[in-house]
Amino acid sequence: MGFSVADAVIPACAVVGIAFALWQWFLVAKVKVSAYAPAGNGVHGRPVFRTEDEGGEDTRIGGGGGGESDDEEDGGDGPAAVARCAEIQNAISVGANSFLFTQYKYLAAFTVIFAVVIFLFLGSVHRFSTASQPCQYTKGKTCKPALANAVFTTMAFLLGAVTSVVSGFLGMRIATFANARTTLEARRGIGAAFATAFRSGAVMGFLLSSLGLLVLYVAIKLFGLYYHDDWEGLYESITGYGLGGSSMALFGRVGGGIYTKAADVGADLVGKVERNIPEDDPRNPAVIADNVGDNVGDIAGMGSDLFGSYAESTCAALFVASISSFGADHDFAAVCYPLLISSAGLVVCLVTTLFATDFFKVKTVRGVAPALKLQLIISTALMTVAALVVTFAALPAKFTMFDFGEQKQVKNWHVFFCVAIGLWAGLAIGFTTEYFTSNAYSPVRDVADSCRTGAATNVIFGLALGYKSVIVPVLAIALSIYVSFTLASIYGIAIAALGMLSTVATGLAIDAYGPISDNAGGIAEMAGMSRRIRQRTDALDAAGNTTAAIGKGFAIGSAALVSLALFGAFVSRAGVTVINVLSPKVFAGMLAGGMLPYWFSAMTMKSVGSAALKMVEEVRRQFSTIQGLMEGRATPDYASCVRISTDASLREMMPPGALVLLAPLVVGTFFGVHTLAGLLAGALVSGVQVAISASNSGGAWDNAKKYIEAGASEHAKSLGPKGSEAHMAAVIGDTIGDPLKDTSGPSLNILIKLMAVESLVFAPFFAAHGGLIVN
Amino acid sequence: MGFSVADAVIPACAVVGIAFALWQWFLVAKVKVSAYAPAGNGVHGRPVFRTEDEGGEDTRIGGGGGGESDDEEDGGDGPAAVARCAEIQNAISVGANSFLFTQYKYLAAFTVIFAVVIFLFLGSVHRFSTASQPCQYTKGKTCKPALANAVFTTMAFLLGAVTSVVSGFLGMRIATFANARTTLEARRGIGAAFATAFRSGAVMGFLLSSLGLLVLYVAIKLFGLYYHDDWEGLYESITGYGLGGSSMALFGRVGGGIYTKAADVGADLVGKVERNIPEDDPRNPAVIADNVGDNVGDIAGMGSDLFGSYAESTCAALFVASISSFGADHDFAAVCYPLLISSAGLVVCLVTTLFATDFFKVKTVRGVAPALKLQLIISTALMTVAALVVTFAALPAKFTMFDFGEQKQVKNWHVFFCVAIGLWAGLAIGFTTEYFTSNAYSPVRDVADSCRTGAATNVIFGLALGYKSVIVPVLAIALSIYVSFTLASIYGIAIAALGMLSTVATGLAIDAYGPISDNAGGIAEMAGMSRRIRQRTDALDAAGNTTAAIGKGFAIGSAALVSLALFGAFVSRAGVTVINVLSPKVFAGMLAGGMLPYWFSAMTMKSVGSAALKMVEEVRRQFSTIQGLMEGRATPDYASCVRISTDASLREMMPPGALVLLAPLVVGTFFGVHTLAGLLAGALVSGVQVAISASNSGGAWDNAKKYIEAGASEHAKSLGPKGSEAHMAAVIGDTIGDPLKDTSGPSLNILIKLMAVESLVFAPFFAAHGGLIVN
Repeated sequence: MGFSVADAVIPACAVVGIAFALWQWFLVAKVKVSAYAPAGNGVHGRPVFRTEDEGGEDTRIGGGGGGESDDEEDGGDGPAAVARCAEIQNAISVGANSFLFTQYKYLAAFTVIFAVVIFLFLGSVHRFSTASQPCQYTKGKTCKPALANAVFTTMAFLLGAVTSVVSGFLGMRIATFANARTTLEARRGIGAAFATAFRSGAVMGFLLSSLGLLVLYVAIKLFGLYYHDDWEGLYESITGYGLGGSSMALFGRVGGGIYTKAADVGADLVGKVERNIPEDDPRNPAVIADNVGDNVGDIAGMGSDLFGSYAESTCAALFVASISSFGADHDFAAVCYPLLISSAGLVVCLVTTLFATDFFKVKTVRGVAPALKLQLIISTALMTVAALVVTFAALPAKFTMFDFGEQKQVKNWHVFFCVAIGLWAGLAIGFTTEYFTSNAYSPVRDVADSCRTGAATNVIFGLALGYKSVIVPVLAIALSIYVSFTLASIYGIAIAALGMLSTVATGLAIDAYGPISDNAGGIAEMAGMSRRIRQRTDALDAAGNTTAAIGKGFAIGSAALVSLALFGAFVSRAGVTVINVLSPKVFAGMLAGGMLPYWFSAMTMKSVGSAALKMVEEVRRQFSTIQGLMEGRATPDYASCVRISTDASLREMMPPGALVLLAPLVVGTFFGVHTLAGLLAGALVSGVQVAISASNSGGAWDNAKKYIEAGASEHAKSLGPKGSEAHMAAVIGDTIGDPLKDTSGPSLNILIKLMAVESLVFAPFFAAHGGLIVN
Repeated sequence: MGFSVADAVIPACAVVGIAFALWQWFLVAKVKVSAYAPAGNGVHGRPVFRTEDEGGEDTRIGGGGGGESDDEEDGGDGPAAVARCAEIQNAISVGANSFLFTQYKYLAAFTVIFAVVIFLFLGSVHRFSTASQPCQYTKGKTCKPALANAVFTTMAFLLGAVTSVVSGFLGMRIATFANARTTLEARRGIGAAFATAFRSGAVMGFLLSSLGLLVLYVAIKLFGLYYHDDWEGLYESITGYGLGGSSMALFGRVGGGIYTKAADVGADLVGKVERNIPEDDPRNPAVIADNVGDNVGDIAGMGSDLFGSYAESTCAALFVASISSFGADHDFAAVCYPLLISSAGLVVCLVTTLFATDFFKVKTVRGVAPALKLQLIISTALMTVAALVVTFAALPAKFTMFDFGEQKQVKNWHVFFCVAIGLWAGLAIGFTTEYFTSNAYSPVRDVADSCRTGAATNVIFGLALGYKSVIVPVLAIALSIYVSFTLASIYGIAIAALGMLSTVATGLAIDAYGPISDNAGGIAEMAGMSRRIRQRTDALDAAGNTTAAIGKGFAIGSAALVSLALFGAFVSRAGVTVINVLSPKVFAGMLAGGMLPYWFSAMTMKSVGSAALKMVEEVRRQFSTIQGLMEGRATPDYASCVRISTDASLREMMPPGALVLLAPLVVGTFFGVHTLAGLLAGALVSGVQVAISASNSGGAWDNAKKYIEAGASEHAKSLGPKGSEAHMAAVIGDTIGDPLKDTSGPSLNILIKLMAVESLVFAPFFAAHGGLIVN
């Protein structure tokens, strides 16, 4: 495979991915949601639900929801319901838009400031000299000046930031476009609703991964116009792309996470616990904020997060390849191997998607979870074959890889094994996560059972479950690291990460499916649609909870590999060959690094808690002061709840963001590369465990609650029904899990990745001027 | 200071310490508890409380408990109450005895098996040859055969195990001897009660630390009769003493922790939450098990734990010293420097104790907490001076220390700084712990305030508090490591650990004071003593909660330093000079090691949860089947609850114990020294954070509950009284914190220490035959 073939394949696959996404979007858009309020008409967060005059119109089907026949028209959810769905969808969409645009103003300010910081730090490496410098790795050659690297790294950073923000925004648009459509399709049956939700997830998955690939490819080509054959400088600059992507992801995850959970916890504490009204009841003033939160936190945040992982692992692999024999030989196809793997992944995911939407259509409630699980298995199996083909086509049989100051002999099939082990470790993590968070298995059922003796035992069992769920994923990651590191040094780890992320389009699709279904259920409830519809959307949602947990498992697993790859690239770029645990600098750094995930979690948990307290007070105030609210005769003031979530998330995302961004800068500048390396290693080792356990405890509590609510078995019935002592205990567990699984847990991925990529980008500065206090 | 002086000072100080302990015991024993049921008369766990016929005798002072005047006789708690106290004390003592002796049977079996394992593994290093070998460190000399080391290591292991068990047992005896006496002294006023509880704590503190010192000294002398000038072999064998101590401590902590928390959680869930009866109410069938648990978990467990830390840090320091210039020069006073520091610590603690019991007597409730805090400050300040004197007297001005294959130049004042930084880091950890767990400060008050919105926000805030409380301790430990490691390599760390532990007699005294006061309060409640007595014991107990948390902070901080020192000694003994993070074997080991504290916590938390569920069922059964129990007309079946706790703890301590003991053996044998080193480093970095956060979250929840119950401020009153919504939420938090702070959290110290000392003891085997799979 020569120069021209790689240049044809990569953009072609990206374009095919985008086209496929648009086609899926077109299919979703065929579902008509009429009575669409014109955008920007000032209904921001305050839709008029008309619950007061239409409350009696619904044909509520009382207790007869047992015998569900699918694919059956339900006449009770007529045009009025459609109109209400449209309005609610619009309100959520307007709310999400409004929040994201406010957040973007802050992010724009941050991005500009940080771009200046990058430029100044990197420019200062050779005191802003415009003279060319001897290359660091290719002996005897001249490379572009450090000033040029500063300029291009800054540009790459901006590009990454913009792409990340666009990815998150597009994801949110699609999700808010699809949620009411899923609700309406649920009238036609579970299969139609599933297809709509899943297709929408696929739109997001394919748009994001294609866009990430395309922008990166174009950037390499454009930067190459300046750098010509100085690949060291070219791929060093490109690392800025990963930093841009991840820093936006951090604020997206943290801000969105605080937003959504403040609203969710606040809504639940008053609505479900005190007032005993259902989730997503339109009488709850925080309900719109809660639904907006699902879109800005789970969708936009997750989109930015996985985009960041993808960008970073590619950057790490490219950088290492550029200082190996691929770079020395100027073998473009070989250097672009990471992009080719991602291109192949797009095609594989495309085929995989058709299995869910066309080849084996979901027809019953029971079919939902297996269909989603099958997606993981099919994509992994197909991708293994695709990786084999790409590896032998793109890579020479033998080459050398940079290995901390030496060059290691690597064969192409070694690299294939790296892709494969990453892929299959991802699947192992996915299945373990499913086992620990799905209420089809005993762990969640045990947690549900412990609710008999109250909230305390529920929490103790849930925490224990989260801790236990760490074992297999961590051993899978450790094994992947061991194998890929041994086979191809740091490049192997980057490739293993890419392997795990190669099926990211499918991963994102099944992940985004969750919040879309959740919102669809919320809209059904708020629009007062029939119980049958709500049962269908609930079934979609229950599977979505597990896929969301699986998505987080992937995100964490890949983050661990990605950050180790970035860590290795950072150490390489800083010119260090050994990081000795038996050195005071390194060990003290490790211990302090291990503490950072706790500090970070303390901040984000407290933020959610404080914002939720404010939300609770506001919701209580509205219930006690607005006449007729509980009776459904008055409309709550949704906007004030939206405002509380917005203000809290924007204010509270700053301190954790500052911690993550400043820690490497401060440690690197004052204590030097070795302590920084220790810090990164400690944060990685400790953060992975915290993230996995937090996210699985939260998922298990959520599904234990759903298990009791659904009452699908004798055991579950003995714990229920809604409102029983055991159910109240389960609700408390669910509420505690909210910030763990949706705010602090998933943000920790970004903590470990972002600190590593930032260290990599600033490595030239640390190597030149770092260690002011300790050297 | 010559040979003879060290030989005079060490045993002299140990004897003085023991004499002081006996004097304190004599003072406590002067409080007469009459109506003592003869030992072994079969009342095991079934005291006859006679609540039915004496219930009306008490002069219960209704609401007028506000104006408390101290040192005032209270005529209402007469001879009948004394008799009841005596009976309850006896029941607790018999229950604790019975449990410990049952546990010792299991431990004896384990010890014998493990002793055989040690002998076989170490004997196999040179295939059980009886021929002398060339020394490893002292070139050109001949050392004793590996078989001799196997024999003596096994003997040292047995000695450590026995000393640890005796220490825990003595602590328990003293505590059960003192609890009713403290209750009775509370009649004379807060000052007398405080003195009794504190003196009893001091008995335990001084007995344990003197005993540990004396046995170790004697062992060195006796082993020296065989080893003569082969100090490498002598001090290598002595490391078995640390392993013996810590392995007993593990089972003590885990078994005792499960015992006490199963009983506590079970008693609270039914008694406080469901039946709304007070804590320690004699109608609660689990109440005796709960009080027994305080003694076997918090006292015997903690005693073994700190004894283990002390033994291990001394062994690590001795081993490193023996392969440094001290060993080469055969400078016994210098080698014995760790023992001399501990000897000086005993004298310092003796003087410090007098400050609390004689120089400044506690007279009011408000005086209790400051008196305990002053103990920490005084002992730290005095010890700093004492360490200066000992250092310049015992150590030559310049010497060399083994530094991973090289010899590092060290000056005696460097070593003084190591002691000092350990000491003061301990104080910093103590104060931080106090700040985060005492309800005199805002963190706990914020947690209490969050109970307004229910249990969920309480748990979220409490978890966040625990995470946040990690920051300062970890930075203090990291700084200590950095400084001591830089100054004197691995020896410096061992000495810093010893510095932190040099005031262990005082630390144990204020730590043991907590459960003794807690029990005293329980006895007052059960004996139906007046409200005034109960208020006084409650005041003692509230301060005791904080000192218990401080004690745990010390235990964790010292464990971190100890295990790093052991880690360094292990690596040295295994002949490794670099542990490179940038190596697949090491990094995979680190990641897996970081997971172990989670696996371990999952097991212990689940054990407590399951045992508590059984306890709840039994307590519920008794309340519903025993006629007149709620009315106080019938006696509950305490023995069946004692049995549930006993069975659960003995059964459930096995798997976590096996995990900790097998992990290093399996990893070392199959994956070799480098992976094992990674495993230890990862477990240390991750475990410290989990342990600190778990123990402080638990302490904060407990004191938030007490804050609401005491209602001492307007804010606290607005949350209370007992039984309010906020209080119920606080009780749930407290229950969740129980296993975190008393089972999984403190056991993690032992996890990280024990894995390290085990690796050190087995290092010769791993170096010779380790790494069967990966090498």
